[in-house]
Amino acid sequence: MEAATIAATYPVSPFFGSPHSRPHVRGFRYLGLSIPLSRFFSASMRYRDHGRQVATRSSGDRITAQPSSELRRKNTGGIGGSEDEKLRSLRALFSRPGIGSTPTSFPLRTRTSEFIAECFMRRTYLTGFDGSAGTAVVTKDKAALWTDGRYFLQAEKQLGRDWILMRSGNIGVPTTTEWLNEVLPSGCKIGVDPFLFSYDTAEEMKAAVSKNNHELVFIYDCNLVDEIWGESRPKPPFKPIRVHDIKYAGVDVSSKLSTLRSELIEASCTAIVISMLDEVAWLLNLRGSDVPHSPVFYSYLVVSYTSATLFVDANKVTEEVLVHLSKAGVQLRPYEAILSEIESLSDQGAKLLLDPSTVNAAIVDLFNSASNRHLHRSENKVKGNIGRGTHLESTTQKDAPVQVNGHNTLFKISPISLSKALKNEAEIKGMRNAHLRDAAALAEFWAWLEDGVHKNMNLTEAEVAQKLLEFRRKQFGFIGTSFETISGYGANAAIIHYRSNPESCSIVGDKNLFLLDSGGQYVDGTTDITRTVHFGDPTARQKECFTRVLQGHIALDQAIFPERTPGFVLDVLARSSLWKIGLDYRHGTGHGVGAALNVHEGPQSISFRYGNMIALQMGMIVSNEPGYYEDHSFGIRIENLLHVKEEMVPNNFGGIRYLGFERLTFVPIQSKLVDCSLLSFAEIKWYNEYHSEVWEKWKELLKNGSGKILGLSPSHSNKCPHQAIISSVIVCKKKKIHNVFFFFFLFLFIIFYIGKPIFVMVLKKLFFF
Amino acid sequence: MEAATIAATYPVSPFFGSPHSRPHVRGFRYLGLSIPLSRFFSASMRYRDHGRQVATRSSGDRITAQPSSELRRKNTGGIGGSEDEKLRSLRALFSRPGIGSTPTSFPLRTRTSEFIAECFMRRTYLTGFDGSAGTAVVTKDKAALWTDGRYFLQAEKQLGRDWILMRSGNIGVPTTTEWLNEVLPSGCKIGVDPFLFSYDTAEEMKAAVSKNNHELVFIYDCNLVDEIWGESRPKPPFKPIRVHDIKYAGVDVSSKLSTLRSELIEASCTAIVISMLDEVAWLLNLRGSDVPHSPVFYSYLVVSYTSATLFVDANKVTEEVLVHLSKAGVQLRPYEAILSEIESLSDQGAKLLLDPSTVNAAIVDLFNSASNRHLHRSENKVKGNIGRGTHLESTTQKDAPVQVNGHNTLFKISPISLSKALKNEAEIKGMRNAHLRDAAALAEFWAWLEDGVHKNMNLTEAEVAQKLLEFRRKQFGFIGTSFETISGYGANAAIIHYRSNPESCSIVGDKNLFLLDSGGQYVDGTTDITRTVHFGDPTARQKECFTRVLQGHIALDQAIFPERTPGFVLDVLARSSLWKIGLDYRHGTGHGVGAALNVHEGPQSISFRYGNMIALQMGMIVSNEPGYYEDHSFGIRIENLLHVKEEMVPNNFGGIRYLGFERLTFVPIQSKLVDCSLLSFAEIKWYNEYHSEVWEKWKELLKNGSGKILGLSPSHSNKCPHQAIISSVIVCKKKKIHNVFFFFFLFLFIIFYIGKPIFVMVLKKLFFF
Repeated sequence: MEAATIAATYPVSPFFGSPHSRPHVRGFRYLGLSIPLSRFFSASMRYRDHGRQVATRSSGDRITAQPSSELRRKNTGGIGGSEDEKLRSLRALFSRPGIGSTPTSFPLRTRTSEFIAECFMRRTYLTGFDGSAGTAVVTKDKAALWTDGRYFLQAEKQLGRDWILMRSGNIGVPTTTEWLNEVLPSGCKIGVDPFLFSYDTAEEMKAAVSKNNHELVFIYDCNLVDEIWGESRPKPPFKPIRVHDIKYAGVDVSSKLSTLRSELIEASCTAIVISMLDEVAWLLNLRGSDVPHSPVFYSYLVVSYTSATLFVDANKVTEEVLVHLSKAGVQLRPYEAILSEIESLSDQGAKLLLDPSTVNAAIVDLFNSASNRHLHRSENKVKGNIGRGTHLESTTQKDAPVQVNGHNTLFKISPISLSKALKNEAEIKGMRNAHLRDAAALAEFWAWLEDGVHKNMNLTEAEVAQKLLEFRRKQFGFIGTSFETISGYGANAAIIHYRSNPESCSIVGDKNLFLLDSGGQYVDGTTDITRTVHFGDPTARQKECFTRVLQGHIALDQAIFPERTPGFVLDVLARSSLWKIGLDYRHGTGHGVGAALNVHEGPQSISFRYGNMIALQMGMIVSNEPGYYEDHSFGIRIENLLHVKEEMVPNNFGGIRYLGFERLTFVPIQSKLVDCSLLSFAEIKWYNEYHSEVWEKWKELLKNGSGKILGLSPSHSNKCPHQAIISSVIVCKKKKIHNVFFFFFLFLFIIFYIGKPIFVMVLKKLFFF
Repeated sequence: MEAATIAATYPVSPFFGSPHSRPHVRGFRYLGLSIPLSRFFSASMRYRDHGRQVATRSSGDRITAQPSSELRRKNTGGIGGSEDEKLRSLRALFSRPGIGSTPTSFPLRTRTSEFIAECFMRRTYLTGFDGSAGTAVVTKDKAALWTDGRYFLQAEKQLGRDWILMRSGNIGVPTTTEWLNEVLPSGCKIGVDPFLFSYDTAEEMKAAVSKNNHELVFIYDCNLVDEIWGESRPKPPFKPIRVHDIKYAGVDVSSKLSTLRSELIEASCTAIVISMLDEVAWLLNLRGSDVPHSPVFYSYLVVSYTSATLFVDANKVTEEVLVHLSKAGVQLRPYEAILSEIESLSDQGAKLLLDPSTVNAAIVDLFNSASNRHLHRSENKVKGNIGRGTHLESTTQKDAPVQVNGHNTLFKISPISLSKALKNEAEIKGMRNAHLRDAAALAEFWAWLEDGVHKNMNLTEAEVAQKLLEFRRKQFGFIGTSFETISGYGANAAIIHYRSNPESCSIVGDKNLFLLDSGGQYVDGTTDITRTVHFGDPTARQKECFTRVLQGHIALDQAIFPERTPGFVLDVLARSSLWKIGLDYRHGTGHGVGAALNVHEGPQSISFRYGNMIALQMGMIVSNEPGYYEDHSFGIRIENLLHVKEEMVPNNFGGIRYLGFERLTFVPIQSKLVDCSLLSFAEIKWYNEYHSEVWEKWKELLKNGSGKILGLSPSHSNKCPHQAIISSVIVCKKKKIHNVFFFFFLFLFIIFYIGKPIFVMVLKKLFFF
């Protein structure tokens, strides 16, 4: 209501001072619109998403693996207690000239990539809470943190007393913007860092806070958290970029750029600004090491009809990269020059293609502002606006100059997203090879672990994960993990987001199920695999649940479907065997996987959220990971990666292709956990054939002694470890055959020693001899 | 562009003169938005939809069962030939004072119910084309008819030379509005009958034609087609309404009204105008006979907090109905009084709940106009506007008085739609009983037909359908067919929309498949069943296709799924067995069915169009009708009706119910067509158990001699006809067993006469004796 309120700050690092601190927005477009994304991810994704923007946006997950705590809500600060030191420093900065005065507030978010560098973990620094999903909002007298059901207990432990914990997804808990509308008097200004919010999200927030006449203000010139963080803030990453070999990339940069330019022409745009790190890496056949788990590097890329410019810190660019880029006509400019480039694009009258779910609000705002100035050709207004806090609201004021929002931008899903998802032959080959080496590492690992468990070596979940890393490191081309390994024993595995804490985690024993979800980044591919095993005697309940998860896994694996089928259509195949007994799992069944790139990518998905209409297409990689989680008891997940390929079916109704899957992952699925009586013949056939294939693939890879895995101990290393699995399955179906033989011999016995004369008579009568 | 153009007329009957001629808009809301609906329906629906509005709206179906004809496009009239007499008369009326002058045009549609009375078949009268889907548009010098791929050949034959045939769905063929924008000079007025278009559709058309500055004009005072039809126009239906017994309805009218009123209060509305005929019939526990196949009667119903008024022709109201209605406090008014009621509601300041997909545009327009006049309290403007052609555009003119559109109406899916879909116990019981009697009729019918075919009686498809009707007529409570029977032999059945012409249709023989899709209206329920049989020797191809359709049918039948699952999620279960060999079908898998009401109802559906998010809920009835159609060869469909019920599963993950289906239809599925080698044990079990159940249900119903059906000829009438079916299945699985016995006897033979000494030695060694 009052115009007296002035912009508060969203804590960003000073832009021109620390170029590396401009993180990129990372939205998962393939997860569809208006879907509570944190409930939408596959289980493995949930564990791994480090402060992904989308995971914090919505109501989140109500997983109740841990009892809903009744812990008292911590007192808000300022009353009768000493204020949190960091909050005090932060609030002191609120009243700095040019920043704002009371009442002020700002939402404080983590970086918006799936994985982020330590220097961007501002929310963790400020609040102490280091869960992968969370949003902090600070006003003059209140500080609140939103997180979802996965992290209630952890946040309760980690947050200081000045912080209010907002349990997202619980009934009656407001969203950040609802809360701001509640606690702030009407007419405030709410500062955000426009580099940390996608354009879509910023627009949503703007609309939401306008209900109480608040104004969303973009703060360009500083990040208050970084300021209070000061010297102790970790340095930004500066590792060199490397060239992704053409033999793995398959298509050279010039061809990719040329395809992109055709798409620009088709969309009547003159240029595209790419801020998705994996899109830049894919398009330029480059890889980096700026963030954990993903081989990407901080950068922007601008491609127009005639030019392509990479905005990146020059320190990271090696001579090889330089040559590689210049061959494709890609120019280099400093990371921070993206801002002047945006202005220059506007001066040239460019029409930009922007993906609103991934491009950050700053880019759009700057481009629109510049275009407006350009439009009015009033040169005296060109300078001085940037870095002073541009008010979003101004663009809609009636007395403002004519705004060109929307006329010089085309908001559209990035065309690179789909191109990147459709792997070429070289990428598929790389993925196949990487998966075989990964399987070899897992074979050694499982043999080692089984030994360790049986020898009571008291290995913890974290030690086990560490050892797996060692086995993977021995493989050619291994670079690192593709996400944080989920190593969960017993009840821990029932917590879908479980991350083992090295100091307090469980010991992997033989009394319960052990779930291991892990993946590797290799020079030629990216892997993601989950296996669940039992080193002792599984209960009937565990076997039934495991078998039904396996049936879902097989049903999806074996699916054949017409072109243009969206992934969600197949989701039910993975669930229906669980549904039959009233069970289900609260995560999606499949996500896209990059080729030597991000372990999670779009645009495709296989999920029970039905918003994503993107069809599964030839060349896509998807995970197949149904699961089941029994609170406080155990967790099950079976995950392979699949490659979408054409199926040679005898008919082609509708004159279209029919598609199916090629398996990339070849690691046995423990037979001990399979209740054979539940499987159909077709399922048993799948199970046995899969393991035959595993053995075929392993023959050349396995060395002596490593054949002993997954609870199977063949006496000779050259004996197929899966044969034991198979025979145990066959036994299930052979029982009746044994019975036949038993009765046959009994029969003979009777004939020879008791009833021979009678029998001969019967035979004589039957055969008339 | 020119303001000189004046409103043309949409041919409606004079409103106050012929009350019956006001048809109701009938949209299938459950089919979702922006979906080409004619492709969306299940096969059976396609055949049956008589001029349903939605089926003509969009691009339609490109079924190529008949070769895409290259017939010359008929010349447009007026040039060098004598003009079609009806068109000439019609165009003469265009220039009548108060109607319009050149250039003029009007879209001409059929009635917008699924089934319509003959007096409303104006499109058929004018164009000669009597297909179930079509839209005619007439301008001063052009006349065009749109229909979809199902009717190209038929329309070519039936249309006069003055008509242009528009093949909807073919590439390059414009929509009606695109065409009007093309052929008319900018700025024309296009007349429509607002009683024949839903509000949604009218708004769409309005927006579409405004692109060329055309104006959509609502014509209230006459229907030009009816005028030229004159004396020869059939009389409107006037059959009496009957009370739907409470023992079948389950809930009395007062309770239903009271529930509806609660919903009105919840929606902050004061009244609802119901124009869907089946909603009126359901709400008032009344049934009528105004249209073929559906037991409904032309009427409107207005329900407010305190009153309920039925607008219906008094001739149809018997003393019994009068008493029934007055008991529930429902008043009666003449059908045409709905218009003055709308004005009076506006005077009272009512806020109306309207379903925009079903309420006709006239109601909305009249209410808004009246509300506007009311708002301005300028009494001198109240009268005289109605009946003169209200211009839709005027409501958006800036200098017009303040418009209250949207403030006094709430557009929302009708709450009655869902209430009606959730059957109560009495309705379910009625459905069960009606299905049993229907099954008895079918048993007699199939026995009769098989005899007839084997005796070479040369029965035509139409005769067969007629005979089926006779068998049904013998059953208690039979009222009529629930849709036009689809009786297709051989290649005819491959045309999904096939309707047999009594004069030219095929003879049902034993050389190909025969598909029969039919249903009955009974006093206690509505049935819909499809069976496909072969009276001779089916080919391996036919058996494979039939078996895969059966597998899909079984998979859907056996599905168990959590609450809140939309129907489309289950669609893939019915298709995946066909997909495995590259086959599919181009219609949905399931539609809702009314209880002694319309055979097609919403809001639920099971379809490969993924727009309908309505969950399958306890008490709903859906059809399960996968199929396969091989062009120019044969057609297969297997259809049962299912009742959605709670499943007693051992777990309830998520604390919710798990749902499944109860079968309502009990008629054998021909075993001769089943390729047993393709079926799993579970599928065989389903097949046999279904037929055991069929026999259990039939025992009391079948009389001597009628046990001989579906190609099975048991020698005694008390022998279960399905036992032969079952044994033929079991034989499939017994083959291996026979082999075992064969080898066993061979073995014995060798032992006794050739190798006895050796064998004894071996045995001695084995058993150490």
